Amino acid sequence: MTRFVDVHNMVRWVGHHGPTAIMAGLVGYLEDDFRRWSSFEKSPRVASHTPYGVIELMPTSDMETYGFKYVNGHPSNPARGFQTVTAFGVLADVHNGYPTFLSEMTVLTALRTAATSAMVAKALARPDSRTMALIGAGSQAEFQSCAMREVLGVDRLRVWDTDPDATAKLVRNLEPLGFDITVAMSGKDAVAGADIVTTCTADKTNATVLTRDMVSPGMHLNAIGGDCPGKTELDPAILDASTVFVEYPPQTRIEGEIQNRPEDFPVTEFWKVLTGEAPGRTSDDQVTVFDSVGFAIEDFSALRYVRDSVDATDFYEDIDLVANPDDPKDLFGFVGAFAPVGG
Amino acid sequence: MTRFVDVHNMVRWVGHHGPTAIMAGLVGYLEDDFRRWSSFEKSPRVASHTPYGVIELMPTSDMETYGFKYVNGHPSNPARGFQTVTAFGVLADVHNGYPTFLSEMTVLTALRTAATSAMVAKALARPDSRTMALIGAGSQAEFQSCAMREVLGVDRLRVWDTDPDATAKLVRNLEPLGFDITVAMSGKDAVAGADIVTTCTADKTNATVLTRDMVSPGMHLNAIGGDCPGKTELDPAILDASTVFVEYPPQTRIEGEIQNRPEDFPVTEFWKVLTGEAPGRTSDDQVTVFDSVGFAIEDFSALRYVRDSVDATDFYEDIDLVANPDDPKDLFGFVGAFAPVGG
Repeated sequence: MTRFVDVHNMVRWVGHHGPTAIMAGLVGYLEDDFRRWSSFEKSPRVASHTPYGVIELMPTSDMETYGFKYVNGHPSNPARGFQTVTAFGVLADVHNGYPTFLSEMTVLTALRTAATSAMVAKALARPDSRTMALIGAGSQAEFQSCAMREVLGVDRLRVWDTDPDATAKLVRNLEPLGFDITVAMSGKDAVAGADIVTTCTADKTNATVLTRDMVSPGMHLNAIGGDCPGKTELDPAILDASTVFVEYPPQTRIEGEIQNRPEDFPVTEFWKVLTGEAPGRTSDDQVTVFDSVGFAIEDFSALRYVRDSVDATDFYEDIDLVANPDDPKDLFGFVGAFAPVGG
Repeated sequence: MTRFVDVHNMVRWVGHHGPTAIMAGLVGYLEDDFRRWSSFEKSPRVASHTPYGVIELMPTSDMETYGFKYVNGHPSNPARGFQTVTAFGVLADVHNGYPTFLSEMTVLTALRTAATSAMVAKALARPDSRTMALIGAGSQAEFQSCAMREVLGVDRLRVWDTDPDATAKLVRNLEPLGFDITVAMSGKDAVAGADIVTTCTADKTNATVLTRDMVSPGMHLNAIGGDCPGKTELDPAILDASTVFVEYPPQTRIEGEIQNRPEDFPVTEFWKVLTGEAPGRTSDDQVTVFDSVGFAIEDFSALRYVRDSVDATDFYEDIDLVANPDDPKDLFGFVGAFAPVGG
């Protein structure tokens, strides 16, 4: 049987532990997997682009466990009452190819994306960072805020979104949790005085939510929303004046902010910062950019974390996804020997 | 909600209609989709190879519906009590990216593989074909036999397998269904006098289960088991003396029998035979080869068929795979507002 965490059980599981504790746990699993980055099989995700949006498959393997995520990205979905991003994922045993674990990942992707941002900011932002600007108050915004507070102690938020309802929703969700929130009048206003700037907008355009003049020395830019060809958020001049960290360069050069820069634009693979093979932040004045697009290994870490966490609980059920005939060569006997034939 | 056909319901559904009727229905859906081949988004499957076997993702889309299959191939599995091939698949709506249908595909892949062979043999084998040689009596063998009988009237089988238990299983399954079965003493003996030769062995080697001298004029060779780099079944000299038909050349050149031939080895895309854009069999003496590796569009057809067939029945259940908050931008409120935070 295959273990299955559906939406209901995912929400129960998150409710039981709390999103912040889960993201803290995810940071640990992510750091473990980023440190053994070179042992994973890696490939750019397989994307099917249409005018509506994109559907992607993101596989990876550590040669013991195989995992993949199905995920879509449809910027016009919220206006029609759908989620921008929905996802589910699978783990399988490499030795026999059997799927062992299936999970909803709409909620889990939100948690792992914020946990990844927090892991990177913990390594790259100035240690005294307290204030985060949020450009975009959509689905990711609260998760980013809780993860950054847990990992770095960031508890002052400066928020800007073109949709006042989204901003109101963020204030409604985060004020009771003790955040000090300023609703900004513009992106420029939000960014003023921030230590960390998180851009998480959903428009599928080469937008410029952040211009060069808005960036101050010492900032860490956590660029989440530019994750697709033709979908970026930063003035490319910011990249030229920063040190840019990425997950997996072959994918980021297609999908990230650096798609607006030449093929040989210098980047640092973030896993090398964790292993000590590359420097992270080297001065208090440096501007660091995490050009985040989301990589399969992060989903692998997240699926591993849920699988391990729900073991021996009732937060999963067993489903019958793999046929298991007594004689593995007798699939026909298993399904059809006594069925009508020729009808 | 997403509709889910698990193994139990798949077996019930197959039992209800009978595998032969289902394969006949599948041939219809396959022909429809092969005729509109050029309207599909196509890419070679994404394979993760290890010494144990392979795990693959096979996506495709007709721009209205997106589908993919997860499938493994582990030749050593049966010796350890596992299926060589297990699979499941998903259909999703392209307009919003939501997965709508999830199905087991271990059983379904067996049905669609045989239905595909039958569709091709119907177009390429001599119309008077009555006798099929089967080299390999594993999971595929009975499905191939039933599909070929349904579509072409082939009812005489000549079977050879190195595993006498597999042969005995085939006889046990097919004799009650009225097939005239000869258990051959060798591959050469099996092939003698056959109109159609189906090779469906599982060894992951460049084997030669069929040599040039075993092939007679007018035969149709249905080469199923060569479907992976380093896994072929035919003496390459057979290919030189035949007309070779394939599903999707970029994938078949990597995985099929023609991997043992130069990059520019001439092949005919089978869909063009159905649309009349390319000739099929042009003489009674011609040897035709279907170099079958299995392509994503066949799984798409199969998933469509099951989805349509189980509609308004109890052969599926609804599962909760996609989070659906009232406010699509308020995923945090959906999962975490009232959960403990900071713990």
